[in-house]
Amino acid sequence: MKLIGIVDTTFARYDMASSAIDELYKTGTGFEIKRYTVPGIKDTPVAALRLFSEYNCDLVMAFGMPGPMPVDKMSAQIASTGLMEVQLKTMKHILEVFVHEDEAKDDRELAWLCDNRSREHAVNAYYLLFEPDKLTENAGSGLRQGFEDRGPVNSGSSGHKH
Amino acid sequence: MKLIGIVDTTFARYDMASSAIDELYKTGTGFEIKRYTVPGIKDTPVAALRLFSEYNCDLVMAFGMPGPMPVDKMSAQIASTGLMEVQLKTMKHILEVFVHEDEAKDDRELAWLCDNRSREHAVNAYYLLFEPDKLTENAGSGLRQGFEDRGPVNSGSSGHKH
Amino acid sequence: MKLIGIVDTTFARYDMASSAIDELYKTGTGFEIKRYTVPGIKDTPVAALRLFSEYNCDLVMAFGMPGPMPVDKMSAQIASTGLMEVQLKTMKHILEVFVHEDEAKDDRELAWLCDNRSREHAVNAYYLLFEPDKLTENAGSGLRQGFEDRGPVNSGSSGHKH
Amino acid sequence: MKLIGIVDTTFARYDMASSAIDELYKTGTGFEIKRYTVPGIKDTPVAALRLFSEYNCDLVMAFGMPGPMPVDKMSAQIASTGLMEVQLKTMKHILEVFVHEDEAKDDRELAWLCDNRSREHAVNAYYLLFEPDKLTENAGSGLRQGFEDRGPVNSGSSGHKH
Amino acid sequence: MKLIGIVDTTFARYDMASSAIDELYKTGTGFEIKRYTVPGIKDTPVAALRLFSEYNCDLVMAFGMPGPMPVDKMSAQIASTGLMEVQLKTMKHILEVFVHEDEAKDDRELAWLCDNRSREHAVNAYYLLFEPDKLTENAGSGLRQGFEDRGPVNSGSSGHKH
Repeated sequence: MKLIGIVDTTFARYDMASSAIDELYKTGTGFEIKRYTVPGIKDTPVAALRLFSEYNCDLVMAFGMPGPMPVDKMSAQIASTGLMEVQLKTMKHILEVFVHEDEAKDDRELAWLCDNRSREHAVNAYYLLFEPDKLTENAGSGLRQGFEDRGPVNSGSSGHKH
Repeated sequence: MKLIGIVDTTFARYDMASSAIDELYKTGTGFEIKRYTVPGIKDTPVAALRLFSEYNCDLVMAFGMPGPMPVDKMSAQIASTGLMEVQLKTMKHILEVFVHEDEAKDDRELAWLCDNRSREHAVNAYYLLFEPDKLTENAGSGLRQGFEDRGPVNSGSSGHKH
Repeated sequence: MKLIGIVDTTFARYDMASSAIDELYKTGTGFEIKRYTVPGIKDTPVAALRLFSEYNCDLVMAFGMPGPMPVDKMSAQIASTGLMEVQLKTMKHILEVFVHEDEAKDDRELAWLCDNRSREHAVNAYYLLFEPDKLTENAGSGLRQGFEDRGPVNSGSSGHKH
Repeated sequence: MKLIGIVDTTFARYDMASSAIDELYKTGTGFEIKRYTVPGIKDTPVAALRLFSEYNCDLVMAFGMPGPMPVDKMSAQIASTGLMEVQLKTMKHILEVFVHEDEAKDDRELAWLCDNRSREHAVNAYYLLFEPDKLTENAGSGLRQGFEDRGPVNSGSSGHKH
Repeated sequence: MKLIGIVDTTFARYDMASSAIDELYKTGTGFEIKRYTVPGIKDTPVAALRLFSEYNCDLVMAFGMPGPMPVDKMSAQIASTGLMEVQLKTMKHILEVFVHEDEAKDDRELAWLCDNRSREHAVNAYYLLFEPDKLTENAGSGLRQGFEDRGPVNSGSSGHKH
């Protein structure tokens, strides 16, 4: 039985963790979930570290919604740097699922984007733990989480074989 | 008995630590407080680390007020990076309570913002130590410390259930 | 027998890893390859670290394609910082092979650039492992991977001897 | 007997260390001084670390003068990040005394600023080592080193008590 | 006998390492040199670390030439951060000798700048290892490597004594 950690914030304006948890249970079995909520994204790295060290999680998903101001972008950068550091301390993956508030044109799209990105990254989390070959099959395919996939640059061309 | 560390600066233009300490005592019991004042925000990380290592604090609140100039923003980034590093070394939370001087339109609003943000983060500190479920109840709710809460993007909609 | 690790992403829009693997086999022998695909560039550092620690790789090539937006540039910076950290933890080289999507004027050039840069860095990887003197012979020569070499500033001059 | 380390550079255009040393001796007793000069600010962190590890310094003051160009600002950021890291490795304070060359309107003001900031931070260094309560008394007071103090935002108001 | 490590790149457009090596031999004796060439500046930190750990170098000079584009500036920042980290791991100095391609107005000046900066930093390296007092004598003197020295701000004034 694997253990997937979920870190999220009260700052975010959408309950992305619940979308991801719902999608994880639709995708497969063989895991349990441990959730840890903190105030803001800069609090997520130590929460993730504690999930790894105290609960022995196998992978963590970290959800956050940076605001639109420069100070928010700086917070996102520092949070990401911390999440990176935790991964390198623990040798475990953290999937960072951040939706920047200014990625969407209005609240409706923002809610959709949060739900969709969380679900698509939940599938990535499942693949990393249980079916890593599914990721290699899609290497270089221009996949996106949330908005539409970009696709590979050479789709339709005959010059390159995967 | 828990021990909450308080780090603040002589650079800040408001005594945010006193607001937080006052609010902590209003919020609950079961903790003591240890305070450590340094000149500026870049001095706060090592102070926090010493509070964890010498006094065995369970959580630290770090208060600072970055100025409006680019050099001040850089100082804030470096201080935040240091506070992150201390959290990952100690596996303990540091709540960073920074009020950027240019967040407020005048000194009156700045004083109000400092007081209010410090108090709201004091409650977050209490929850992290004593009632973590209170945070999960508010996951994705768009809470803010200081200015008004943004609220969830799907409030009033019928499309999503928490 | 050396082991070369390959980390790539499903986010990238070109299968750069396959170009590099093809070129490695054209360049020489004495190595095997282990591939690890992750969703995005910020997932590459921990993948590289696992290739070093679990499979004892001697060198890793990390392939990624940062998008054109500021948030993508920040992701690239954080990924690079993580790849740096992994190198310093393991004392092994990681050749970072990033192609920024906005380096090319269209998809055709982007595909060409991805293929070419991957191949030229594959040769660098081979030299680092098997023929380091080939690199010293070209020190200060203004070599580039992908686009045309810039060349040395003093080519044609008589004032300086290598 | 405490030992205060002094790190400075040949790049800076003012001998800030001598100002600080002079002020330290005016401020109190109970310490000795060890000085280590390096070429530029990016060389100061390892110098500080060596002062801590080889000479067992209790605190280090690091003096530098970043130039006005973007490359200089980047150097300052990297130096500060390194000084932060050294503090967290040693659990000792480093007071970073940087004067950016473009903070002053001319050379005369620059010399005055260097001298004054160095002296005021020398007093901070003394307080950190010998009289930490002096800092707490001034928490939130808007103190500055070099230019005039900003003062607290609520001076003269009746709405807040320290 | 001291050992000076030299790290340089095939990306740079001038063989700065050869200038530095030539100048080191003109400056003094008592050292040997070990050279390690890598593709680009982001590869220099792990090369420096290997020179320290495998060859027991006493000091490393790291040569690089960041290009003029934002992506190049980011690479320089990451390389510098890595070189900083290596210094703090090993407690040894790395003199970073970077010449940004856009510092010079044309190729001729670029070549001159590379040669001159490399030579002047070679002397700094020698002083750090063999005559550290020479650096303290020049503390605060506004020295530059490459372009003309800026000099101290108080030259000619009578208000300040070193």
